[in-house]
Order: sequence, then structure tokens, then C-alpha cells
Amino acid sequence: MIKHTSHIRVRYAETDQMHMAYYARYLDYFEVARTEMLRAKGMPYRSFEEEGYLLPVLEAHVNYLQSARYDDELRIETTLDFSGGAVLRIEYNITREGQSIATGYTRHAFIRASSGKPCRPPKRFLEAIGQH
Amino acid sequence: MIKHTSHIRVRYAETDQMHMAYYARYLDYFEVARTEMLRAKGMPYRSFEEEGYLLPVLEAHVNYLQSARYDDELRIETTLDFSGGAVLRIEYNITREGQSIATGYTRHAFIRASSGKPCRPPKRFLEAIGQH
Amino acid sequence: MIKHTSHIRVRYAETDQMHMAYYARYLDYFEVARTEMLRAKGMPYRSFEEEGYLLPVLEAHVNYLQSARYDDELRIETTLDFSGGAVLRIEYNITREGQSIATGYTRHAFIRASSGKPCRPPKRFLEAIGQH
Amino acid sequence: MIKHTSHIRVRYAETDQMHMAYYARYLDYFEVARTEMLRAKGMPYRSFEEEGYLLPVLEAHVNYLQSARYDDELRIETTLDFSGGAVLRIEYNITREGQSIATGYTRHAFIRASSGKPCRPPKRFLEAIGQH
Repeated sequence: MIKHTSHIRVRYAETDQMHMAYYARYLDYFEVARTEMLRAKGMPYRSFEEEGYLLPVLEAHVNYLQSARYDDELRIETTLDFSGGAVLRIEYNITREGQSIATGYTRHAFIRASSGKPCRPPKRFLEAIGQH
Repeated sequence: MIKHTSHIRVRYAETDQMHMAYYARYLDYFEVARTEMLRAKGMPYRSFEEEGYLLPVLEAHVNYLQSARYDDELRIETTLDFSGGAVLRIEYNITREGQSIATGYTRHAFIRASSGKPCRPPKRFLEAIGQH
Repeated sequence: MIKHTSHIRVRYAETDQMHMAYYARYLDYFEVARTEMLRAKGMPYRSFEEEGYLLPVLEAHVNYLQSARYDDELRIETTLDFSGGAVLRIEYNITREGQSIATGYTRHAFIRASSGKPCRPPKRFLEAIGQH
Repeated sequence: MIKHTSHIRVRYAETDQMHMAYYARYLDYFEVARTEMLRAKGMPYRSFEEEGYLLPVLEAHVNYLQSARYDDELRIETTLDFSGGAVLRIEYNITREGQSIATGYTRHAFIRASSGKPCRPPKRFLEAIGQH
């Protein structure tokens, strides 16, 4: 299990006429958070694709608790959980000044780009999460 | 319970470098589908906001089964379920040529824009779903 | 020179807190309009990429005249102009009930995907625009 | 005339199947850059809206010179030019490791939210750009 904390600022482009971040944008925020987590752990997602792996999303879930507003600075706590196989689960907790804004998770599969088939994670990933 | 079927075509803007519709875009598709369902049932969402109601999303969920590709024509079956109170649940089934691409749901609350408080749905909504 | 007319409805996802379609979304609308024009003329953009051509954008311009609002039905008149070489220019005029909302243009180059180099348009394109 | 430099990292959400940042996303980047410039100069855009001003875009232009790729770190140099009246012009130069990726500009009008009419900029803005 690995953890990481990211920060993001709500862009005007991400607001809607309800004066809050549009609900689909939270999935963009989740992506930024997991990208930064992977980079911080020495395995940028870009390098996975360069090595022939893809990590498509199998499932995504968001609970919306409070509105995120334009220009808000959000904190995202990300937790990656891997228990073997090809699938990993990432949990997200978005807060603003200590108050919970949204929680959620995504599930991803390691896929070999050449075959489109699920596969074991690259060795580098297993080392980074301490399961080599 | 009411049902509706919508059609959507995947835009280039919605693809990512994995050559499929980016995972957050499915929530945009869900929104288009529920907007069209409400309009088809004689209660366009726009009119709710004009009458002082908002319908923010409480929860969203997507299961990704197959990739949607650029220019694909997708069919979205939408089912709205309301069992009283302020909350409604909408289910979505996205298919392409009979094959399931994604399923999911959203939960929404009727909110009075002036107070930000949950409220009973407008009478027009209750009539449309046969619960007046 | 070829012409085409498309229709588009403003999605909630495309609004911002100024209660209008966000300014970058007009470039998405332009893309939908030119995609539909190419399909209507028997040369879907998808088939260009399948045949090894890309059509990246060199330049984009938008003049914003009136706000487009949520759920508005917009009409987009698209005009493609090609005067030889690798570059084509497409002009757009977005209207709502006869009133001009925005105008603009994009310039694109035909590129061979394998080399990344500009190239002559495919024969099918030249035939469609009457320049074979 | 005021200047500012911002940094941005290309998100996966912003790529398209041509393996580059989608052309409309550059307008999102421009917005992030001008937002950060205004904040750095002590006049966050958020505060303009809170004081009853809007700054809608009149015109936008982008020249695409090189592709921006997923995870690229981009530098955006922003220059604001104001020569009186209600209109201001902002120029953008996006680079990656010293190489120019895109240039462009936007033109905006100060509008009073209550009337929708163009107006003189707030005093705070004139002070910040040294024209009080």
C-alpha cells in the first residue's frame, strides 16, 4: 500500500453554471493525483506506456460531499492498494481546509499494449510497492 | 420509473492517447442522456433551474466494459427511479451495436437554489413520473 | 470549396460559472462541425487516420459575439477552402435562431502519420472537393 | 503592461488519440496562465467577480507550432496589455525546454455583471498595471 498527497486548484474551465466544479472533473482530479503519486514513487505513468503497458480504468466511483468552487485549493490524498493479479485499486479523499469535499476510488488493470490482455505489473511497480 | 434512449457520437476531443474515450467523458455522456430523458418527458432540466431548483449529483459510478472509440455511435438507455424524498437515482447502459460498453448510475438531490436545502421535487416532476 | 450545416446542443458540462458555454468549448464545436462535414462529403475523418493521414491544427481563431447558453440549439455553418499544397482552411459561423454567436476558422495540414511530414491530400479528398 | 510566467503539466485527460494535447486545451492553459498572473499581481480574478465585474473573452487565437505531449512540463509567458477603455489584450507564449510550442492571444472586456455593459476596469486593476 502506498500513499501520496497532491494539491490542485479549481480552474474556471472546470466550473459549471451551478458555480461549482462540474461532477466529471473530479475524475480528472483523481487522474492528476494518481499520476503525481506514481511519479513521486519513481514510476511515472508515462514510462509504463513507453514500456508497453496500459492501465485502463475498470471502474470509477465518486461521492460528492461539498461543492468545490472556482480557484479553491484542494488537497487530494491518494492510497494505492494492490493485492496481486493484474488489478489495482486507488482511493481518493479530496479536502479543502480540512473539510471533506469528495471521496472515491478507481480500479485499473495492467494490460499489455501489444496483446490487449491483462498481465502482471512490471517489476518496477512491484518493487515500488514492496512486493517484489 | 421512466426510461429513455439517447444516441451520442464520440468526439475527437473526448479521446485520449489510449485511443478511446477518456474515462471522465462517460459522465458527460450520462448527463446528455439524462438531459434528453427529462426533455422527452416534458420537463427540461433548464426549466427546473428557472423555477429555482437545482439537481446536484450526490454520487456517480461507472463500470467500464469495452472501449468506446472515436466516431463510434453509442446508444444510452437511461432509467430514472424515484421512491419519494428528495433523492432520485438514474441508471445508464451504454451500448454499441448491441454490445455493452459501460454501465453506471448517478444519484441526485432536489435542492432549492435559494436555501441550498433538499426539497420535494416540483409537482411537474411528480406528475411526469406518475406519482402526483 | 465545400459547405455543410451542423446542429449542436450546449451541454451542462460545457457551461461555466458565467452561465455560458466556456470559451474553449467553441473549438470542440468547430471539431464536431468539420467532422460532420467530412462525413457528409463521403470522407469521414476516421478513414483518413486509418489510411495513415493526420490533420493536425496549425491555427485556430474565434470571435465571440453573443453568449451561448445551456441547452441552446446552435447551428454551425462550415466552409472548407483548399487551394493546393498540404494546408486547408475551414471557416465556421455559429448562430442561434438566426443571430450570430461566434465566427472563426481553423487551418490544418495533411501529415503522413509514418513520417510526420506534410503531404498532398489523399485522392479521395481531392475528388470530394472537385480538384482531382 | 505586466508580465508573468506560469508552469503547467499536460494531463492525460488533455491528450487525444493523436498523442498530443487536444487543440482546445491550449485555451484552458491560457486561462490558467492569466488567472495566475492576476493573482500574482494582487488582483485574483475571483475577486473581480465578487465585486460585480466579469471579464468575458471577445476573441481568442492560437498558433500551434509543436505538439505538447502527455506529462510535458510547459512554461507559459503571459503579457497583459491595456491601453484604456474596457478592453484588454493578453498574449501567451508556451514553451517546453526553451522550444516554442504555441503562441496566441485573448481579448477581454470588463463588463458590469448587473447591467451586462462594458465598463472601466476597477481601480485596483488600474493601480496594479500602473495606470491609476
